[in-house]
Amino acid sequence: MQKPSIPKGTRDFSPEEMAKRNYIFNTIRDVYHLYGFQQIETPAMENLSTLMGKYGEEGDKLLFKILNSGDCFSSISCEELLEKNPVKFAAKACEKGLRYDLTVPFARFVVQHRNEISFPFKRYQIQPVWRADRPQKGRYREFYQCDGDVVGSDSLINEVELIQIMDEVFHRFGIRVCIKMNNRKILSGIAEILGAADKIVDITVAIDKLDKIGLEKVNEELREKGLSEEAISKLQPVIMLSGTNREKIASLKEILATSETGMKGIAEMEFILDRIEKLALRAELELDLTLARGLNYYTGAIFEVKALDVQIGSITGGGRYDNLTGVFGMEGVSGVGISFGADRIFDVLNQLDLYPKDALQTTQLLFVNFGEKEEAYLLPLVAQVRAAGIRTELYPESAKMKKQMSYADTKKIPYVAIVGETEMTEGKINVKNMITGEQQLLTVDELIALF
Amino acid sequence: MQKPSIPKGTRDFSPEEMAKRNYIFNTIRDVYHLYGFQQIETPAMENLSTLMGKYGEEGDKLLFKILNSGDCFSSISCEELLEKNPVKFAAKACEKGLRYDLTVPFARFVVQHRNEISFPFKRYQIQPVWRADRPQKGRYREFYQCDGDVVGSDSLINEVELIQIMDEVFHRFGIRVCIKMNNRKILSGIAEILGAADKIVDITVAIDKLDKIGLEKVNEELREKGLSEEAISKLQPVIMLSGTNREKIASLKEILATSETGMKGIAEMEFILDRIEKLALRAELELDLTLARGLNYYTGAIFEVKALDVQIGSITGGGRYDNLTGVFGMEGVSGVGISFGADRIFDVLNQLDLYPKDALQTTQLLFVNFGEKEEAYLLPLVAQVRAAGIRTELYPESAKMKKQMSYADTKKIPYVAIVGETEMTEGKINVKNMITGEQQLLTVDELIALF
Repeated sequence: MQKPSIPKGTRDFSPEEMAKRNYIFNTIRDVYHLYGFQQIETPAMENLSTLMGKYGEEGDKLLFKILNSGDCFSSISCEELLEKNPVKFAAKACEKGLRYDLTVPFARFVVQHRNEISFPFKRYQIQPVWRADRPQKGRYREFYQCDGDVVGSDSLINEVELIQIMDEVFHRFGIRVCIKMNNRKILSGIAEILGAADKIVDITVAIDKLDKIGLEKVNEELREKGLSEEAISKLQPVIMLSGTNREKIASLKEILATSETGMKGIAEMEFILDRIEKLALRAELELDLTLARGLNYYTGAIFEVKALDVQIGSITGGGRYDNLTGVFGMEGVSGVGISFGADRIFDVLNQLDLYPKDALQTTQLLFVNFGEKEEAYLLPLVAQVRAAGIRTELYPESAKMKKQMSYADTKKIPYVAIVGETEMTEGKINVKNMITGEQQLLTVDELIALF
Repeated sequence: MQKPSIPKGTRDFSPEEMAKRNYIFNTIRDVYHLYGFQQIETPAMENLSTLMGKYGEEGDKLLFKILNSGDCFSSISCEELLEKNPVKFAAKACEKGLRYDLTVPFARFVVQHRNEISFPFKRYQIQPVWRADRPQKGRYREFYQCDGDVVGSDSLINEVELIQIMDEVFHRFGIRVCIKMNNRKILSGIAEILGAADKIVDITVAIDKLDKIGLEKVNEELREKGLSEEAISKLQPVIMLSGTNREKIASLKEILATSETGMKGIAEMEFILDRIEKLALRAELELDLTLARGLNYYTGAIFEVKALDVQIGSITGGGRYDNLTGVFGMEGVSGVGISFGADRIFDVLNQLDLYPKDALQTTQLLFVNFGEKEEAYLLPLVAQVRAAGIRTELYPESAKMKKQMSYADTKKIPYVAIVGETEMTEGKINVKNMITGEQQLLTVDELIALF
């Protein structure tokens, strides 16, 4: 007899985990709606021609490919087969793959439905993605992404609103966060000034270590990475950049004065800060030059959210990109988006014990079952209580009292109703508060009023 | 340049379709919660050892199989490869497949988590499934199922509650339905009386044609299917069964008097009818002997829901089964469940135009954007309106008025707010009702009160 299991890197979600996950998804969904974002969904399977080549060579390998149904060998010669080359084989035997992220399917969606979409298009999407990564702690082969993007608008108001959205979501969760912001154009400007365009990542990585290893070691690392002494010297004010966002911008303005791109980035940053300052943000907003996510992708603002009270990687990220749909033949579609990391947010909420009690509570009231007679008496009464919107169960069997009470305990049902011979005669319900142990004899109307 | 498309039999869902689908899923979810059902989710990919052999030979062929990542050829000899046998190949090169339904993964879940589950376990699950069926109108390769099951309880109260759930869901949708009910034990009893256990399906199919082709032709068909004259003669009262549920049961009691199994089925049916009669069901409930879904699976009650005002197949179905988890080594787990057909319900709601307006409305209020100055003025005001819970957008660019109004039209936004020079000076907002065309000059507080 087979012992059942699931593929490594995948998960079952229990009722309690689902309640928590639904709380997360619903909160994000509500905030997206508040800002006029609309939901779409795309199929789990995309044509491999849509997916291949979009995530680099490494990404191609991490795609789950689906064997063609029917005769998967129809277009493969015996010679090709005997090569036993998985990549070549898959190219002929697999037409479809599981989506790897929500961005490429979204780009495909925008191009395919361009005539039905009214731009600017504010869409959100909450769906699982699949990656054949080596499974490890906190990294799964199936996980949900919660993306929100605005495409077809260059306006920086979109960046401002996405910051507001991140702020509102984490405020609702009760998670204290710092929203870090950078701008690809500022990084490009710095590289331009230094004459080291190919070294942006090395530079940001090195600067990021300042607190840990000190200025000397940072400069040493830059030297090792091949930066000239002149460049390192020019970079010193950038490395030592500190103070408020405004102070940092003032310094950057001096440093980047001769770089048109750099100054453009600063102007964008200032525009956003000007607007945000009038908006009573609850989160911290910090200009952080070491933020270098998605550098071969983002062209303007870059965002990342860090939780302040838990040691964990970024729990949300995003940025502005210039050519989402070019690869599918539709040029000039600029966009900006964010992606909430549901799994990490789940962990943070768990660690800080921030789930609201009523989000986790399912059934509110359990009626104990004493047998056929009581059961028949209770059915219409239970229907009446449910009609009032109270999530109610009637234990389906006249099991031992202990078993029924333990069922209520396990399911964390806060009230148990006991209706036996006496209560039936009196037309009353004996209601037990499972937390305080207190019991009350109530009429149906009083019972309903209790909730 | 590739023209983007999606795999045949799959679908993108637009914002409007998503709003409709969410309305359907949320309604079903709310009712499941009202009855104490808890949600679980299982991975899209299951081990093929879990899936294979559970859906018959035909079903095995309809499983989407995932090519092992890395070296899919590692356990295949050249000889085997050259056989070009897709089934044999997949058995060695594919470990995982996409789930085909929610029942088998649920059975696997129950066995795998038996020690964490408190029985009776009332679970619901709303997730997509995948089948490599030939795509055709109304049949997709990816579609959602919405299953609710109670396992670990033999009590017929569960059947009663599932009928209440179906009734409540379709009442909330505003779809008039007939819930048809049969019982596998009654069908077995009939076959027993006739001495024709292998002919149950033929018999139900033939009886089902009575209205269309008349008694003579039905008997002819039964003869062709190999039923003896004696059996056909015994079957006449069953074929002609009519009247109320109680009248049908009275007749069946005579016909099945000598069949223990048959009488057991009648007793079950009576128990359910007794309880339901006291429960003010909105739907019709009809005993229908021609209902023969899942006969090699169901062991007791069988349900099917038909919409009364639309020509379409059954929109929900289910029944009682006796050995859900035996195949995974856990014997004696009885259960009863139903499955809502989301795609067909979607079509019915469309045809009858039953979607509530506010379920489809996303953004409630759009602020027109006249330029940087107005935009900067509006941002905090918009934040204030959103803080009151009103789903609000500020058009991100100072595009032409016509373009912004047409954006509001397309998105079906009911109110547009216009704040130009004059309004800014007066501290007022000019609000246009997009349906009546009526305009009002309001303060922020008055605007909020409008919603």
